Formats: sequence, structure tokens, C-alpha cells
Amino acid sequence: MIPSLDLVPGVLAGELHAVARLLTRAEAGLPECRPALDKIFQHAGRAHIVGITGVPGSGKSTLVAKLVAAIRQTGKRVAVVAVDPSSPFSGGAILGDRIRMGEVTGDPGVFIRSMATRGALGGLAHGTLEAVDIFDAAGYEVVLIETVGVGQDEVDVARAAHTTVVVSAPGLGDDIQAIKAGILEIADIHVVSKCDRSDADRTVADLKNMLGMGVVRVPVIATSAARGEGVAELVAAIEQHRSSGDIEKRRRLINERRLLKAGEEILRERFVQQRDGRVEELLEQIQARKLSPHAAAKRLLGEA
Amino acid sequence: MIPSLDLVPGVLAGELHAVARLLTRAEAGLPECRPALDKIFQHAGRAHIVGITGVPGSGKSTLVAKLVAAIRQTGKRVAVVAVDPSSPFSGGAILGDRIRMGEVTGDPGVFIRSMATRGALGGLAHGTLEAVDIFDAAGYEVVLIETVGVGQDEVDVARAAHTTVVVSAPGLGDDIQAIKAGILEIADIHVVSKCDRSDADRTVADLKNMLGMGVVRVPVIATSAARGEGVAELVAAIEQHRSSGDIEKRRRLINERRLLKAGEEILRERFVQQRDGRVEELLEQIQARKLSPHAAAKRLLGEA
Repeated sequence: MIPSLDLVPGVLAGELHAVARLLTRAEAGLPECRPALDKIFQHAGRAHIVGITGVPGSGKSTLVAKLVAAIRQTGKRVAVVAVDPSSPFSGGAILGDRIRMGEVTGDPGVFIRSMATRGALGGLAHGTLEAVDIFDAAGYEVVLIETVGVGQDEVDVARAAHTTVVVSAPGLGDDIQAIKAGILEIADIHVVSKCDRSDADRTVADLKNMLGMGVVRVPVIATSAARGEGVAELVAAIEQHRSSGDIEKRRRLINERRLLKAGEEILRERFVQQRDGRVEELLEQIQARKLSPHAAAKRLLGEA
Repeated sequence: MIPSLDLVPGVLAGELHAVARLLTRAEAGLPECRPALDKIFQHAGRAHIVGITGVPGSGKSTLVAKLVAAIRQTGKRVAVVAVDPSSPFSGGAILGDRIRMGEVTGDPGVFIRSMATRGALGGLAHGTLEAVDIFDAAGYEVVLIETVGVGQDEVDVARAAHTTVVVSAPGLGDDIQAIKAGILEIADIHVVSKCDRSDADRTVADLKNMLGMGVVRVPVIATSAARGEGVAELVAAIEQHRSSGDIEKRRRLINERRLLKAGEEILRERFVQQRDGRVEELLEQIQARKLSPHAAAKRLLGEA
């Protein structure tokens, strides 16, 4: 196996093969690729990172495909990191999403990468942020992170973005409720898709009504993939948000969050490495109710 | 303020006032109550912890109310920890849920406690596991954890349970898809609610069809709050799961997960405490792309 560090020059030169290989290693979380990823991080920082999230059935993937095509027309290279739910049974992505993406594949200026979410310890798709760094360092000017759902993990991923787009659609009963429940506040831009439908006006009105409660003015854009409407407005809104003063603050928040996440990851690694020794011993004591999990964790972290 | 440690004897004696006060402090995450919670943990371990989760609109809260009433008829004391989504705008629980719970309040053998999920750093409702410990140590024989949605946090909470019940309902378009996407594998028992509806049979059939792919046989119970059907079967299924061999393994897995979560919590505390010193310094270096978040976190954890 070529050492990951040797792939870095290829990634920085934008070579697809090197990018693909390092992405695979980053997703697998191989310790061997850590120094390479550290180096990649140092060369990243120019891309505009756009998070796109919404409940299943919101037409998000169709919108992403249209958006990628529209951004490509401005001459920019675009990468998509699609974080898909996976079950131990299916082990993979929802097939439909990948098929809908088909219309933008085949263009060398577009790179689409699916990442599986992890069900076990951890949760957040491993390597997502590293994948963004790799695309960034490889010269993709826009990196889209597409996530499904409204859980905290999706919120976390969306918070790794400079600009977050939340997609709703008419006719999804619990849609508005779900937005209320957690993702309303993370949106820099709201999109209501499928606006060729007759009930779309109500969805837009409901959303604007809810947003009326907030202090910040968030744009609501109606799109229709069927009629080819709204995508140019969305590209413009994304561009406008990029040039707003928000981005620098956002960069700092992202770094804070990443530092904390990295610490948690190191902790999990330590947990796995010491699984048969110190950790096992502490677990026995928790099991016997002699020690609380918190008291045991303090010992594991060398605090008590 | 009475020191939290002084509340412990009252909690162990099942005094409602002491229980309520310690719950509030645990949810607030006051460092002062940590020794009390450590002690509480040592006295807990007898309750049967049942997680109940499902998408919004699945009739979950109605079912929980019926379930609590049915368990009460067996003479057992029941506590409910309801983890509700909250937005910075609304700041609280979905009102409907609390109203539906009304029918079991007023019974001194039932204690219902709502906890807000946290949107900021952390995610998982702070103090949920501690609340379960408090109820457990206070002598509640069954503790129900009710969570909304299908995100990783909900899965995490459900994994804190000995027995996990996943509630679906007919007529929720993305319901089955959402289950597919992450919570199918966590169910020990499936419930399809609202089975007075004509389209309920299809939901049950779809679910059984999907479960057919799995190795383990998971019961699917049809309930109807309107007709008062299925709740006795659910109580029996929960009891059967409790007496199965699974529970001991589950206890161990829960403790492993809690040890790791506690470690992450300590890390977050350290992050906040050192916010103006060491953490700030490392953030500057990340910001300047001199250090990756991972390399910085290693330094923060004293590894490099």
C-alpha cells in the first residue's frame, strides 16, 4: 500500500485517483492516514462549504443535482459529500438518491462521494469533515454536504458548513413539526421544493410565519425541479451568504466544534485500545455499582 | 441551598420532593450534584428501563399514557422520562404530549418528568441517564424513557434502555423509510399504533416484511388507543423481554456506553474551563491552519 502521506501531493494537484484513495482511507478511519489528513487540513480553507439538509422525501437529492449543474455553469468545480443513513441490514445508501444524482455525473468538474453513517459508537459519519478537507485542498471551490433527516448528527454536519440550506416540501405532514423541533435555527437559507404542487403556497406561508418569530431574516426560496424554477435564485442566495460577514465567525465556530469532536474521537480510540485492560477493570466496578460511570471516566482521563 | 448529597437519603426513601429537586439539579448539570449522583448510581440497578421511541405523529405519547396505566394495574410504580425536542425559539415541550399524559397524572405511583434536548454543544439531553438513575434508586420499578424522532440521539437514548419499543403508525408517508434509515435494528418490540384505521394492516405487513430480513424474531404488536386494544399484549411483551437472557448483556452494553459518554462530558467540561487559556491558543493555531483539529486535540489531551 502506498503510504497516505505520498498521496498528498496528488490530492493537492487535484488528481482524482489520489483524492478517491485518500477519501476511502479517511472514511475507514485508518490511523495510518492521520498525518496525511493533518497536512491536507493545512492546505485547505479556500472552499465554500454548503450544507444541505431536509427530511426524507423533501426532494433534496433532486435539488442537489440541479444545484450542482447550476454552480458548474459558473465555472466552479463542485464536490458533494452525501451522508446517507445506513442500517446494519441494508448497509448502504438509499438507491433512489444515487440515481437522481446521475445527471451530473460524468462531468470531471464534479465529484460525488457517498459516506455511510455509522450506527455503532460514535454516530456522526466518520470522515465527513476530513472528506470536506480533502475536496477543499484538491481545489474544489464549492463543497456540498448533503445530509438526511433532522437528528442531532445531521445538525452537527450542517454546522460544519459555512452556509446551511434546509429543504422542506409540501405534503409532508410532519415536516413543519420536524423543522420546529430542531433545524429551524440552523438554516441560513430555506428552500421549499416541489413548488409546482398546489399545496406549496401553504408550506411557504407556514414557514415564513414560523420564521417571523426569529430575529434574523432568513430567505425562503421556492423551487420546482419539474418546472426548472428557483435554482438560480438559490445559487444567488448561497453566493450572497458567502459574501456576508457571517462566514468568518462561522469558520471559527466550525474549528471550535472540530477541536471538540477530535478530542472525543481520541477518547473513543483510547477506549478501544485499552478495552481489555484499564477499561475492562473500570467496567467491572461500574457493573458492581462500586463506581459511577462519571467517576470511572475521571479515572480513565487521569483526573482522579 | 441544601447540598445535593443531603437530598440522597430522601431520594432513596422515595420522597417526591427530594426526587424532584435532584432531577432539576441533574438536568442543569450542576457540578455540585455530581457526588450525589455518584451515590445514587450505586443504589440504582433494580428498575426495568424501557425506551419508547417513534416519529412525531406516531401516537407515541398516547400509547405511553395507556402503558403507564396498564403497568400501574400490576401494582408497580412507574416513572417516565420524556425527552422532548426544543428549539431556541420555543424552548419547551410540545404541548399536546403533556396534555395527553394528563390521564395518568395525579396518581402518586406515577412520576412524569420532561427533559429538554439541548441544541448546543453536546446534543443528547443532559441528565437523561442520571434522571433514570434517580427514579431507579427512588424505587420506581419501571422507568420509561420516551424520545421523539429517529436521529442518533434518540437511538442513543433508546440504547440506554433494557427493552426498546419502536412505535409506528399508519398513514405517515415517510415512516417506514425513516425506520429503515436507522431505528429498525434497535427495536426489541415493534408497535403499530392507531390500528383502528383501515390502512393499518398494510403498515403491519410492511413492517413484518422488513423484519423478515433480520435474524432475530422481533414481536410486532398492533394497538388502538381508540378501541383500547393491544396495550395488555404490549405489557406482556415487555415483561417477556425483561425475563429473557438479553437483559444482562444489555446492562453491560449500557455501562460501556455510559462510561464513554461520561468521558466525553468531562472532555467538554475541560474544554469550557480552559476556554480562555490553552483552548484559545490551540484554536488560534487551527484558525491559522498551522495545526489540524486532531493534532490540537491530542495536545489538549496531553498526548503530544
